[in-house]
Amino acid sequence: MGLITVDQQVRAALRTALTEGDLLEAQAEREHYGHDETEDLRFPPDVVVRPRTTEEVARVVRICAEHRIPITPIGGRTGLSGGALSVHGGVGLALDRMDRIERIDEQNQQVTVQPGVITQVLMDAVAAKGLYYAPDPSSKGSCTIGGNLAENAGGPRAVKYGVTRDHVLNLQVVLPNGEVIWTGANTLKNATGYDLTRLLVGSEGTLGVITKAVLRLLPLPKASRLMLVPFKSPIQACEAVSAVFRAGITPSALEFMEREAIDFTLEHVQGINIPVPDEVQAHLLIEVDGLHEEVLLHECETILAVMETHGCGEVLFAQSSVEVDALWRLRRNVAVAVKAHAVYKEEDTVVPRFALPQLLAGVKSIGAKYGFRSICYGHAGDGNLHINILKDGLSDAFWQEELPKAIRELFTLTVELGGTLSGEHGIGLVQRPYMDLAFDRTQLDLMRGIKQLFDPLGIMNPGKVLPG
Amino acid sequence: MGLITVDQQVRAALRTALTEGDLLEAQAEREHYGHDETEDLRFPPDVVVRPRTTEEVARVVRICAEHRIPITPIGGRTGLSGGALSVHGGVGLALDRMDRIERIDEQNQQVTVQPGVITQVLMDAVAAKGLYYAPDPSSKGSCTIGGNLAENAGGPRAVKYGVTRDHVLNLQVVLPNGEVIWTGANTLKNATGYDLTRLLVGSEGTLGVITKAVLRLLPLPKASRLMLVPFKSPIQACEAVSAVFRAGITPSALEFMEREAIDFTLEHVQGINIPVPDEVQAHLLIEVDGLHEEVLLHECETILAVMETHGCGEVLFAQSSVEVDALWRLRRNVAVAVKAHAVYKEEDTVVPRFALPQLLAGVKSIGAKYGFRSICYGHAGDGNLHINILKDGLSDAFWQEELPKAIRELFTLTVELGGTLSGEHGIGLVQRPYMDLAFDRTQLDLMRGIKQLFDPLGIMNPGKVLPG
Repeated sequence: MGLITVDQQVRAALRTALTEGDLLEAQAEREHYGHDETEDLRFPPDVVVRPRTTEEVARVVRICAEHRIPITPIGGRTGLSGGALSVHGGVGLALDRMDRIERIDEQNQQVTVQPGVITQVLMDAVAAKGLYYAPDPSSKGSCTIGGNLAENAGGPRAVKYGVTRDHVLNLQVVLPNGEVIWTGANTLKNATGYDLTRLLVGSEGTLGVITKAVLRLLPLPKASRLMLVPFKSPIQACEAVSAVFRAGITPSALEFMEREAIDFTLEHVQGINIPVPDEVQAHLLIEVDGLHEEVLLHECETILAVMETHGCGEVLFAQSSVEVDALWRLRRNVAVAVKAHAVYKEEDTVVPRFALPQLLAGVKSIGAKYGFRSICYGHAGDGNLHINILKDGLSDAFWQEELPKAIRELFTLTVELGGTLSGEHGIGLVQRPYMDLAFDRTQLDLMRGIKQLFDPLGIMNPGKVLPG
Repeated sequence: MGLITVDQQVRAALRTALTEGDLLEAQAEREHYGHDETEDLRFPPDVVVRPRTTEEVARVVRICAEHRIPITPIGGRTGLSGGALSVHGGVGLALDRMDRIERIDEQNQQVTVQPGVITQVLMDAVAAKGLYYAPDPSSKGSCTIGGNLAENAGGPRAVKYGVTRDHVLNLQVVLPNGEVIWTGANTLKNATGYDLTRLLVGSEGTLGVITKAVLRLLPLPKASRLMLVPFKSPIQACEAVSAVFRAGITPSALEFMEREAIDFTLEHVQGINIPVPDEVQAHLLIEVDGLHEEVLLHECETILAVMETHGCGEVLFAQSSVEVDALWRLRRNVAVAVKAHAVYKEEDTVVPRFALPQLLAGVKSIGAKYGFRSICYGHAGDGNLHINILKDGLSDAFWQEELPKAIRELFTLTVELGGTLSGEHGIGLVQRPYMDLAFDRTQLDLMRGIKQLFDPLGIMNPGKVLPG
């Protein structure tokens, strides 16, 4: 499949289909919907549709199926693996007009949302009713629930509350032939047939378009404590991570940042005033949350003891909401800061958490071998390490030809350590060439068979997830 | 597919394949493996194989594939939907010799187990290391991890800790063609390709044979409190259930029992001494657990206030481990007691929890219309109501012809309330005829397509889950 254009006849049909939504054709609009946060990749769709209802999505999909036109579902365009890029042109299906929270069901602690709802908007709306939607990707202020579902997004709180998948009860999906189904039921348990719900979560828009979701809510935690723990060695910091869990504590966040991640961010983001002594080479950002202050204090004491055993420096406890915000801004802006600094490639490796020090040492050693600098940070409590490889002064030839070999080594190590390619960013476009490291032909053939079953015409987000 | 016999040539091949395991052919042995806990159904396999290794399972499956012989995976035979019954004869694949806990990984809080490990054995082994495997089906003393995975088993603690699915990291599976795959990675997060792991969980042995599982462990809760709360009306009790969660408490168990469920059990099980005043018509059994005694006391006070608001009678707090055991024995033996009392049919309905009172009222009203008595109990916190319909003096003709109509009404109501057919028992053999109430043709065709993809010969546990 090359780059597919959408002819006038199809455009007319799409316009007719969109009684409430609209069709965008201008260059600037196509470009707006043609990128996400993956490197500097740009793949504008040939036209953009912005439906307002499930029925409109279904009509658009039926037209595309009839004319064999690729459809790329587009959410908040904060993705880091290129899942929302219209690599084959065709129709960009932007869900941003389907942004209603349809019902907050306080009695059952469930919420029904359209896919275009911004994650933070959902969190705030349910918090106003004393409820909690837990998954909070770093981009929560601009990413959408539809995108979170498509990529099975994580975030700092996944370590305690689980990833997006763990909060989904039921999905409404427009299949690639335009039929509309619900995947399950609005229940906390379900042992009725194959689990279509969790097959759709994380399928990156390749099996259908999620047009509605019923999500599970929790009681809103009433209090939290946040601390920044410095270490002289990143390996020491990683070693402390699994010790926290072995001490019986499940923090609500346990984040790792290399020295340079902090330096980049402090330079890039205004108004964060955190002193970092010269000898500090890594930080852990640790949060505990819950309903009882006295428990949090107790947990903080236990964590502090674990950290001291592992040779930490002076721990900074956030003393006010201003300090809490500053520490979280620091953490949440690392990716942005690195991106502002340089051309880079970001990997989303995940391993069993005790293997983190080995993974980190391996990353540095592969970097030394190939001659690249990397900045590492991420959700250490989950064993999920984001690796930013900086282009710095490296040649384009190196970047194109040598770097993929280095990344293969890096993923090979990850898989050897019991891990895999992506913890929360998905495979999308950019990790496809490495899928053979995580899966053999039998596994990939099963996945290809699933794709073929749902999308025999191959029009739904082609060029993603599965290697060609 | 009728009843398939296994000829001498195939038996010889199977014998050769089982270098460490064995082949059973005697009538008594076939009958032993020919029933589970589903009503009084008996479907003995033509031969039973008991492999000891994944390689042996793969060899057996390859032989069966070659000769088109149905294979029924068999676990602890505690199932309640007939998933382990060899309805087409053929080979019964008993996993009871693959019962090793291969590795308790304390550093990563993971355990690698073979499918034949009994759930309670696993719980005890990890508890000895301060770790917790949370899912605890009522049959935990005899059911196996393989069966729990196949059926996506729940149990009382699912309300706080989730069902079996939520504790699985990775599965080794022998596919219906004899190939062996791992479904994922040993990581807490995974956004790498389609989620084969959760597709296999709950697939009831129809897509492959689970031969190994990597499961997530939690810190062992240090303390718990258990209370039995009587109500004059079952509807009142159900109404109190969702109020507990709205008060911000997530109990580690929130069980409902109708009056008769308790009467049957007290009569059937020796040595439980619990006074039940005449006016009491239902009980809630509520447990909270955690790491901090003071929190539990606080939670108990909140729960008590909620119960009193809903008109409960005098609450019985278990004061000793003996009393805790007695209350749990009471709850866990309800199914056994009902079974001992009468011929019955058990349904495993699940609805959003606030709809429980409506479901319960509907069950009684359908019972009144058709003239049957039902005993209801279950995991009310999850909205999961077990409905035991008693045969009592009803005619065989009624049982065969009228009862299915009543059950259709019951499931229709369940689905109308946002629920579905099975919360934790699976569809297996006995709920297949009702799948059309939960799913339309499009959904069922997707499921059939998945079955066809994994098992094109249709030899893996045929006659289960999907309607004919």
